[in-house]
Amino acid sequence: MRLDDISTPGRVADPDEGITGPELALAARNHGMPLEAMRYDLTPPGLHYLLIHYDIPYLDGRTWRLAVGGSVRRPRTLTLTALQRLPQRTVRVTMECAGNGRARLSPRPISQPWLVEAVGTAEWTGVPLRYVLAPSQVDPAAAEVVFTGADHGVERGVEQDYQRSLPLAEACDDDVLLAYAMNGLPLAPQHGYPLRLIAPGWYGMAHVKWLTSIDVVTEPFTGFQQAEAYRLRQEAGEPGAPVTRIVPRALVVPPGFPDFMSRARIVRPGPVPLAGRAWSGRSPVTAVEVSVDGGQSWMAAELDPPDGHRWAWRRWRLEWTAEPGSYVLTARATDAEGSQPTGQVWNRGGFANNAVQEIPVSCLAGP
Amino acid sequence: MRLDDISTPGRVADPDEGITGPELALAARNHGMPLEAMRYDLTPPGLHYLLIHYDIPYLDGRTWRLAVGGSVRRPRTLTLTALQRLPQRTVRVTMECAGNGRARLSPRPISQPWLVEAVGTAEWTGVPLRYVLAPSQVDPAAAEVVFTGADHGVERGVEQDYQRSLPLAEACDDDVLLAYAMNGLPLAPQHGYPLRLIAPGWYGMAHVKWLTSIDVVTEPFTGFQQAEAYRLRQEAGEPGAPVTRIVPRALVVPPGFPDFMSRARIVRPGPVPLAGRAWSGRSPVTAVEVSVDGGQSWMAAELDPPDGHRWAWRRWRLEWTAEPGSYVLTARATDAEGSQPTGQVWNRGGFANNAVQEIPVSCLAGP
Repeated sequence: MRLDDISTPGRVADPDEGITGPELALAARNHGMPLEAMRYDLTPPGLHYLLIHYDIPYLDGRTWRLAVGGSVRRPRTLTLTALQRLPQRTVRVTMECAGNGRARLSPRPISQPWLVEAVGTAEWTGVPLRYVLAPSQVDPAAAEVVFTGADHGVERGVEQDYQRSLPLAEACDDDVLLAYAMNGLPLAPQHGYPLRLIAPGWYGMAHVKWLTSIDVVTEPFTGFQQAEAYRLRQEAGEPGAPVTRIVPRALVVPPGFPDFMSRARIVRPGPVPLAGRAWSGRSPVTAVEVSVDGGQSWMAAELDPPDGHRWAWRRWRLEWTAEPGSYVLTARATDAEGSQPTGQVWNRGGFANNAVQEIPVSCLAGP
Repeated sequence: MRLDDISTPGRVADPDEGITGPELALAARNHGMPLEAMRYDLTPPGLHYLLIHYDIPYLDGRTWRLAVGGSVRRPRTLTLTALQRLPQRTVRVTMECAGNGRARLSPRPISQPWLVEAVGTAEWTGVPLRYVLAPSQVDPAAAEVVFTGADHGVERGVEQDYQRSLPLAEACDDDVLLAYAMNGLPLAPQHGYPLRLIAPGWYGMAHVKWLTSIDVVTEPFTGFQQAEAYRLRQEAGEPGAPVTRIVPRALVVPPGFPDFMSRARIVRPGPVPLAGRAWSGRSPVTAVEVSVDGGQSWMAAELDPPDGHRWAWRRWRLEWTAEPGSYVLTARATDAEGSQPTGQVWNRGGFANNAVQEIPVSCLAGP
């Protein structure tokens, strides 16, 4: 037996293929944010979405070290305490998994089967990466910075520590952090303890957790998670465009109350306050619209004014007067580059899919 | 349209029916504990399993009140501050969902599709319930105590606030708490803020979250979650036996490293330390055995001595020397009443199923 027998190529589900055992195994350990948690500006601990490729590593912050090397004049090794003594910055960030929405696609790419909940907002505290790179004297020919995490596994036949890169210019933005705290507390094991990258505006795959080394490189990084995974492709084998920044999305807090099993929503006739959040990693959200007829007609929602947290979601509200009947609630966000599509924009990895949410709601006059 | 059109009877999956959309929607919001978290005596915040029937209620601890009434001489209303002034007790508890293992059953009952990860261990702090009941002067004819939570929804056609009861004698055990803290911090919203019941040794359905009222009753409670749900039945419509205490289970921390998609495990030849946890809610675990051949032969594991935490899991260990080949790892726990079964013990709700775990492991000499 060889690795290739165990770790097979990616695939797309057959037309009527239900969620498979391996997809369920991923869904049982990773999790989305229950949408009612959009009530909170900062997602309460434990409700922020999680996507872990392999196992959660077990690291001891006292003995852990970060290696900074590659194309630098002065390679260095830093302790957690040394990193915590450097200039500190806190950034509020809405993070979303690049695969959010994947399980709603048809045909369905087989991977972590997200519906729409793979999101969360936290305040991350750490040192801006540029304060760590500068003393190492980066090669003037540097192109990218490669981040290596301690999580180890195999994926489509490639054994690896999780690795991703950022272009040097992006990596030196003041808001790109090596973060050691989340909402004022040391990182939880599942969020990257003791240190992770925070790259505001980028999908989650860029925010490498459990960092062990940072390497400056002069050529574009071609590791698995950069050149194989996280590409927008129609057909296997295409080079594909890279997945980068978060495209706009608005979500609705499901109104009323749910049926346990179907998760269908029930409201009573009369005023129903609708609210939710909207975000975009490429430019600020400029408008949110709401539909109760599955996108046939739209109403403008009231969007909270900018609050200085450029990388965090913004709240929106709209009061709906419900009458008995059946509805499909949805919302769409717009930024400088456009609005969310009402239908799917398919790719084989199921990435960066921001088709609008659909919430079936029944307004019942009585039981 | 009526509630009954939206909220339908329970059912069992067709023989080849994959995980359905509603099951996936539950799996995306509820989550299990990644098994590598068994390394920790206390499950880190956010990794403890979660099962929420309806929505997470949004309660303000400053205005929230607990009503204590029913068959008592002095009905009362208590604030959170008043409860926190009463005698305080901390109990370490391993909690498990009654439906753990459900998605491994054949045929599969349609509900939250747990594999084996619906477990977690925490230290809960609160006031023993009996200190709250005593000043209310319970009716000598009292039989049970009914706990009502703020989570509201509909289930199989029945609109309800989540409610469960405990027999009065069980409810007055010193370890049964009205808990306001988990691992030394106020409860997170998803764990029942501001107050929940803790009934050590019972499956999770008994530990009612977001408590709003406690009512003493003189007849057995027949609410939905007591008399309809959480019963052991072979056929729909049978009265069925109630689901009560946790039957024994041992789980293995999956060794080596995983394939991202299949979650299959890979180890290298040589010594492989195996470890995990074992627990039982009915009597202490007395032995753990491990098998690497899917239960054909068993080896005795070393079980940590009792540490005074009667209601918490215990660690076990065994060193395995792996040789190239394919294995199925499993473990079984034994308590005073017996051992885990190697095959399924089926019921229509998929409750209290403690068939042994199965972890496919490949030992590869090289890539």
